Amino acid sequence: MAGDSRHPERAAVEALTDSFVAGLLEWIRIPSIGVDPAHHGDVRRSADWLAGRLREDGWPQVEVWDDGPALPAVFACWPSEDPQAPTVLVYGHHDVQPVDPVERWHHPPFEPVTSGDEVLGRGASDDKGQVAMHLLAVRAHLAATGRTSPSVTLKLFVEGEEESGSPHLRKLLEDHGNALGCDLVVFTDTSLHERDAPTVNTGQRGVLGGEIVFYGGTDDVHSGRAGGAIPNPATALAKLVAALHDDEGRVRLDGFYDDVREPTDREREDYASLPFDERVWLATSGGGAQATSGEPGYSTLERIWVRPTAEVNGLLSGYTGPGLKTIVPASATAKISFRLVPDQRPEKVEDQLRAFVAKHTPDGIRAEVTFRGTGVPPYAISPDHPANATVREAMELAFDRPVRFARAGGSGPAAVLQALLGVPLVYLGATLPDDRVHAPNERVVVPLLLKGAEAAAHLWRMLAGAGIAKRVTDESV
Amino acid sequence: MAGDSRHPERAAVEALTDSFVAGLLEWIRIPSIGVDPAHHGDVRRSADWLAGRLREDGWPQVEVWDDGPALPAVFACWPSEDPQAPTVLVYGHHDVQPVDPVERWHHPPFEPVTSGDEVLGRGASDDKGQVAMHLLAVRAHLAATGRTSPSVTLKLFVEGEEESGSPHLRKLLEDHGNALGCDLVVFTDTSLHERDAPTVNTGQRGVLGGEIVFYGGTDDVHSGRAGGAIPNPATALAKLVAALHDDEGRVRLDGFYDDVREPTDREREDYASLPFDERVWLATSGGGAQATSGEPGYSTLERIWVRPTAEVNGLLSGYTGPGLKTIVPASATAKISFRLVPDQRPEKVEDQLRAFVAKHTPDGIRAEVTFRGTGVPPYAISPDHPANATVREAMELAFDRPVRFARAGGSGPAAVLQALLGVPLVYLGATLPDDRVHAPNERVVVPLLLKGAEAAAHLWRMLAGAGIAKRVTDESV
Ligand SMILES: [Zn+2]
Ligand SMILES: [Zn+2]
Repeated sequence: MAGDSRHPERAAVEALTDSFVAGLLEWIRIPSIGVDPAHHGDVRRSADWLAGRLREDGWPQVEVWDDGPALPAVFACWPSEDPQAPTVLVYGHHDVQPVDPVERWHHPPFEPVTSGDEVLGRGASDDKGQVAMHLLAVRAHLAATGRTSPSVTLKLFVEGEEESGSPHLRKLLEDHGNALGCDLVVFTDTSLHERDAPTVNTGQRGVLGGEIVFYGGTDDVHSGRAGGAIPNPATALAKLVAALHDDEGRVRLDGFYDDVREPTDREREDYASLPFDERVWLATSGGGAQATSGEPGYSTLERIWVRPTAEVNGLLSGYTGPGLKTIVPASATAKISFRLVPDQRPEKVEDQLRAFVAKHTPDGIRAEVTFRGTGVPPYAISPDHPANATVREAMELAFDRPVRFARAGGSGPAAVLQALLGVPLVYLGATLPDDRVHAPNERVVVPLLLKGAEAAAHLWRMLAGAGIAKRVTDESV
Repeated sequence: MAGDSRHPERAAVEALTDSFVAGLLEWIRIPSIGVDPAHHGDVRRSADWLAGRLREDGWPQVEVWDDGPALPAVFACWPSEDPQAPTVLVYGHHDVQPVDPVERWHHPPFEPVTSGDEVLGRGASDDKGQVAMHLLAVRAHLAATGRTSPSVTLKLFVEGEEESGSPHLRKLLEDHGNALGCDLVVFTDTSLHERDAPTVNTGQRGVLGGEIVFYGGTDDVHSGRAGGAIPNPATALAKLVAALHDDEGRVRLDGFYDDVREPTDREREDYASLPFDERVWLATSGGGAQATSGEPGYSTLERIWVRPTAEVNGLLSGYTGPGLKTIVPASATAKISFRLVPDQRPEKVEDQLRAFVAKHTPDGIRAEVTFRGTGVPPYAISPDHPANATVREAMELAFDRPVRFARAGGSGPAAVLQALLGVPLVYLGATLPDDRVHAPNERVVVPLLLKGAEAAAHLWRMLAGAGIAKRVTDESV
């Protein structure tokens, strides 16, 4: 298909593939683990590497934002010669997850290898592979169209703190609001439903997490001395955790579902039409779970994409070593997080949880609730938004097959970007849910990245038509 | 009072006090921590020390039982010259608890000090102090009565594995049944209600402990990928733990209370008549708890002495470090123990717990239940048993005040001794509930040990009257 005259973008991508893979391997070698202060120098090297690559590619304006407190972010801009062209900001991140448990990697995580059609290494998929994909897309777009500048004004914003929860993203957006101004955001940190079922993502769940500690006495007490006569904080906390869901899995915070936006019939039809093998899903995304479960009336995909949830992430109380210690523990801790969907707001759920804890704290127990940050708001854009229609068209051109809309169950800074930049945000990514991101042996499937690059190249061309640009940016989210 | 003609035993105890304290300090210096294999040599040294002391005291038959698998136990016998005299076996232990957290000791745990009327050091109260008290009692008994052998045939059995749960006690009793044959057991590892409220203990709760593990998947899963769509073992386990007690604190295992023997009115009156300051109890035995709680209709003392209980001793699931990890954990563990009262049987409660777990294991979760050993059965003897009447009389003579009956909330091998030796078992101890046994800065109050020694000396004299001996041993427990 390389020479397909309908798709000069495809030929251009193919011609640039070797250089693309070589660059990705080079970048992965820089262990830019943002959550580990010992690697902050590497985050800086990673930003510098990306800036260098952008300059090599011909981007006229390239900056590394490293004036603190945020870890280095990379900004680049390549203006279109057409003053009427819309401005599109591509968002990604260059920090990567830690590599523990390192002994489960088959190759050292920062010595990437190619194996078959995959590249293996930390960050291959999340998110260096997809940022590199967008660099490739711009080169292919120029080569295919014979232009010296892109059809739309392109901006690239690649932060270094996404895996830390983007703690300074708001500040970056506020400090650099002028530079980042745009008509549309394209969010690259997203995946396809399956290798043979490409999808366009239209939203991510939000997240809010915290810790509940129940305090009883000041010391663990021998149960022979007091067992049966003082409150046991582990028992009290178990009762609270048990009350958090009804028997069918619905979350029982007062008002939790009040702001939940139901998916449209069209969205539910799209999700139902996607291939889904429960056995395979349980073995991969389900972490080897023995069965699915959850809110009645919703499919597994709906449960993880469009329904909110509360999960206990950790429990700790008393003695947890080998054998037994017959104590009444002095305290008990539960780490709990919520995945949220539009139009839930993390700050409202925070209040709901505080009220729930107050209601479930028995006499003789003192409760402490702390939240980790302010949470990440959920985000969704209608599949009917004109920008999404264009993205889907570009994807269908590249993938040569029908493309459906989907969602993502995880969380990211999409809502923050959308809210602070005040423009619609769409997704264009080409990784897979089973790329083992955040886990040992992370990989990316190179042919999918090439398809994604081609789709982006199509998108820049298609968005340039003034009519489309106008439709894209005028419509509200 | 030393010269009180009514109490030659008191004068005899007083004359031997210095030698008694010096011996106790020497013995405490041997760190006989039975649960720590690194200290097994010290357990042997401790047994040898005790055997040496017994020989010095004139006991004609002294043996160290060290033929494995049990840690060394000491056996001694001093036959009465009177062939009609009953045989009494005194039970105690010479192994001690570990000393963690060692940094909270004001003096090194095995460099005992005397301070005011206390001796401080690991084992001072539990149980070296009380075994030494009985050695003193025998010397005082002989001195006060002018005899060369005791009024009753005395046997002493001091094991080295009590703090390990007496795992080989049954075997020891079976192997040495002939040597240990007796008409009555006196159990020394027990305490008084308060310094100014001496009591005779009439029972201990049993204990059964184990671990419940709920397994979901094979790996922790990112909650963005599966949260809401697979069972969370931490939530499921919390629901099980929550179901273990009703809202008023009653244990909800089917049949749990079926075999529970209610205390008699007489016992409840005795317990109600004991001084009890809830504020002080919460600060000491209650480990700083903010309030008492428990089964309705029972006092705090009844809740810990005569009512069974279930306690969560530990919880562990998922991520428990600093901050948050938004995972659905692969498994969750609860350590749970039960304190049991007559006539509950550990093996029956084990079955009840297994049935309860089976009932509360939801679809998609696999449960594993393991018990630590076979548990310790509860034990109680009626306060109206003639042996108890004699013990109380001896205690009242020594303490110069009314003595009431009480119970203990902890557990020990009393039921095993009673069952295998087939004779009644009574308690004679003189330590205090706030001696910080199993905790830093363990102490014993020396004047109370002297009173206890005097009481035992009275007891040996009083039991010698053939009528009493007959009454004591004929009555069923
Ligand atoms: Zn990412
Ligand atoms: Zn003890």
